[in-house]
Amino acid sequence: MDVSTERLRADIRENAEHGGFEDDGNPGRTVLTGSPADEGVRDLFLSKLRAADLEPRVDAVGNVAGRYVPAGVDAERAPVAVGSHLDSVRRGGIFDGPLGVYAGLEAIRAIDATEVTLSRPIEVVSFTEEEGGRYASQLGSSVAAGHRDVEEALALTDGDGVPLGDRLDDIGYRGEGAIDAAAWDAWVELHIEQDTLLEDESAGVGVVDAITGIANCRVEVEGRADHAGSTGMFDRADALAAAADILRAVEAAGREHAIETGGTAVATVGELEVTPNVRNIVPESVTARLDIRDVDEGVMDAVIERVRRASARIERERPVGVSVDHYRHDPPSRMSRRCVDAAREAAADAGVEYRNTHSAGMHDTALLADVTDTGLLFAPSRDGVSHSPREWTDWEDCAAATEVLARTLVRLAA
Amino acid sequence: MDVSTERLRADIRENAEHGGFEDDGNPGRTVLTGSPADEGVRDLFLSKLRAADLEPRVDAVGNVAGRYVPAGVDAERAPVAVGSHLDSVRRGGIFDGPLGVYAGLEAIRAIDATEVTLSRPIEVVSFTEEEGGRYASQLGSSVAAGHRDVEEALALTDGDGVPLGDRLDDIGYRGEGAIDAAAWDAWVELHIEQDTLLEDESAGVGVVDAITGIANCRVEVEGRADHAGSTGMFDRADALAAAADILRAVEAAGREHAIETGGTAVATVGELEVTPNVRNIVPESVTARLDIRDVDEGVMDAVIERVRRASARIERERPVGVSVDHYRHDPPSRMSRRCVDAAREAAADAGVEYRNTHSAGMHDTALLADVTDTGLLFAPSRDGVSHSPREWTDWEDCAAATEVLARTLVRLAA
Repeated sequence: MDVSTERLRADIRENAEHGGFEDDGNPGRTVLTGSPADEGVRDLFLSKLRAADLEPRVDAVGNVAGRYVPAGVDAERAPVAVGSHLDSVRRGGIFDGPLGVYAGLEAIRAIDATEVTLSRPIEVVSFTEEEGGRYASQLGSSVAAGHRDVEEALALTDGDGVPLGDRLDDIGYRGEGAIDAAAWDAWVELHIEQDTLLEDESAGVGVVDAITGIANCRVEVEGRADHAGSTGMFDRADALAAAADILRAVEAAGREHAIETGGTAVATVGELEVTPNVRNIVPESVTARLDIRDVDEGVMDAVIERVRRASARIERERPVGVSVDHYRHDPPSRMSRRCVDAAREAAADAGVEYRNTHSAGMHDTALLADVTDTGLLFAPSRDGVSHSPREWTDWEDCAAATEVLARTLVRLAA
Repeated sequence: MDVSTERLRADIRENAEHGGFEDDGNPGRTVLTGSPADEGVRDLFLSKLRAADLEPRVDAVGNVAGRYVPAGVDAERAPVAVGSHLDSVRRGGIFDGPLGVYAGLEAIRAIDATEVTLSRPIEVVSFTEEEGGRYASQLGSSVAAGHRDVEEALALTDGDGVPLGDRLDDIGYRGEGAIDAAAWDAWVELHIEQDTLLEDESAGVGVVDAITGIANCRVEVEGRADHAGSTGMFDRADALAAAADILRAVEAAGREHAIETGGTAVATVGELEVTPNVRNIVPESVTARLDIRDVDEGVMDAVIERVRRASARIERERPVGVSVDHYRHDPPSRMSRRCVDAAREAAADAGVEYRNTHSAGMHDTALLADVTDTGLLFAPSRDGVSHSPREWTDWEDCAAATEVLARTLVRLAA
């Protein structure tokens, strides 16, 4: 397959000029929905699609698609889709998102230049706002996957109270209709790894078998504020001392399930607020936010059950109240067998070392997995850094992963 | 002894008109150093001293004293001093401080009306700012006890950058010299209890044998911020999970020493800050502030030693750094045998039930204990509430405790 490292590099570099900056010699970018930088990356992508003879379409929430219809293929047949997103976090890197979009386009260019017989179109897609920098994470893909309807999405407002619809009008990217991922035959995304497993094993590509689910709980411990000097140790209802048991339970559950699952399970208390948080007052209440992830929903549920048991035990042992509000639950997404197999075979065909892995971060692919067959590939990323100008993948590694992506698409669209 | 409930009530009520307010039917007051309310309570106290033929003196930091010299007594002989403070916390109650000052004055009036032979003068004192509402806790007594010199005290600035000296000038209470507590024969203070032991046992007065010391430590746990999704449980340096061990150690040490000491020891983590405190980021660092109190300095040290051992263990077991900064150490103060004995005998004389107790809160007396013989009496306080308009002591209880105070002064000054 004739993937061009140089062409891919030029595309990603050109894309990075929009919203771009240098930080300590590293190339960063900030591309938020509806900004001039967003308009820039979109205009560039449209021009690149047109240059490859893929007539671009823009849907009502700004998702952009270009369909490659090989000779002899019915243009209306369910396509195999490929892509990612062009937005970034604030002061992010140049690969997270754009690699997947431009690798998709480069794969199509390489396929077009190769003698292969396909039976389906290939559609390259850039989804609106994956990072949630202004409106919502996985915004464009949530509409494509039917999790959110167009009107609901357009009515979302940002921190300044501006609706998404207005932002898209500003830059001329409020199109018509909605890309329907359920009408696709399959979807494949290439993304940087955001971890060091590939780098550690010198593997060229990661073939993801599952994207972890995320559960969030808010644990509230209600005790009683008392003077820390005059209230005896056995007369207190110390919410923070009680919360220590929650911290222990979360870590212990996370560790045990991590051993059991071979490392995929994680459980974290990242946020904890003490009230009134004054040195000489026994803490009245504590609010902790928990983040629990695994590729196995049963493990996520088991960790939460463990937290609930710890809460009940604390309530028996101490004069405090504990409530657990399991307010978010995104179940894990399994990648389709046919996509995983196609990717593994493609890596073997391309002579690129691959590693089976899972994704601990969310991606558009997680939502699309509900409505179509999905595959997710990872390219190695230096030191596992992402969401930072220090994010880096060598161009040869980008090209090797793109080669695997292209061969995966050929296998799926054959 | 002819203590007048009515006179004492009138004094405390008149005093409470300055900076006074009603909250839900309860009488509160806010008297901060140098405020019009402070000027008001001082002017009133001076007028009451004069009415009792006690010529008032004001020292350079605004401490006010009036000396009672019984017939035939050398005015220059080391006096027995009595008093408390007239300032309050913001939105405080009407008894915390004023009870001690006006009980001292009432005791002198009662003594003067009684046939007793004394060999020493009795000096009633109101110290500047005990509560630390504007400048520093135990401010006036710290100067009288020689912990702080006059210039240092006058140069202290409040939240608006105004020095104490200017505030005192504003209200005309920057006097001359400094009251020297080391020149006193003894000091006795009557204060509301701030606990419910007297109320629970229907005792009329508490005879304090020691004021707890206070140690404060800042514990800093330094870990590493990582993504809570992509960083495995065994690859993290989670500062909050590590801090849970500190929370446990502090509570366990507090409880064990509380059992050993019969309840005087307390150890609290009242304040805890997590950085960056974001749900999906493994906590990078945690700062906790510890408050450790006991009447036995060895117990305080033992609790801190336990925290240090826990910190060392955490550093061995986890990839985090832990530092313990023991930044404040006020040792416990023991009341003098002679003052304690005098108070117990005075209670028996007066037919007022007394209870031996300790003080878990700080008072001017704690500082004075370094330089003179000291005694501290408690009057019962409803539900143990202080620093609130709900603070309340029945007038009969005020008078009974004042009776004990007066008889204590007579025994000490005999």
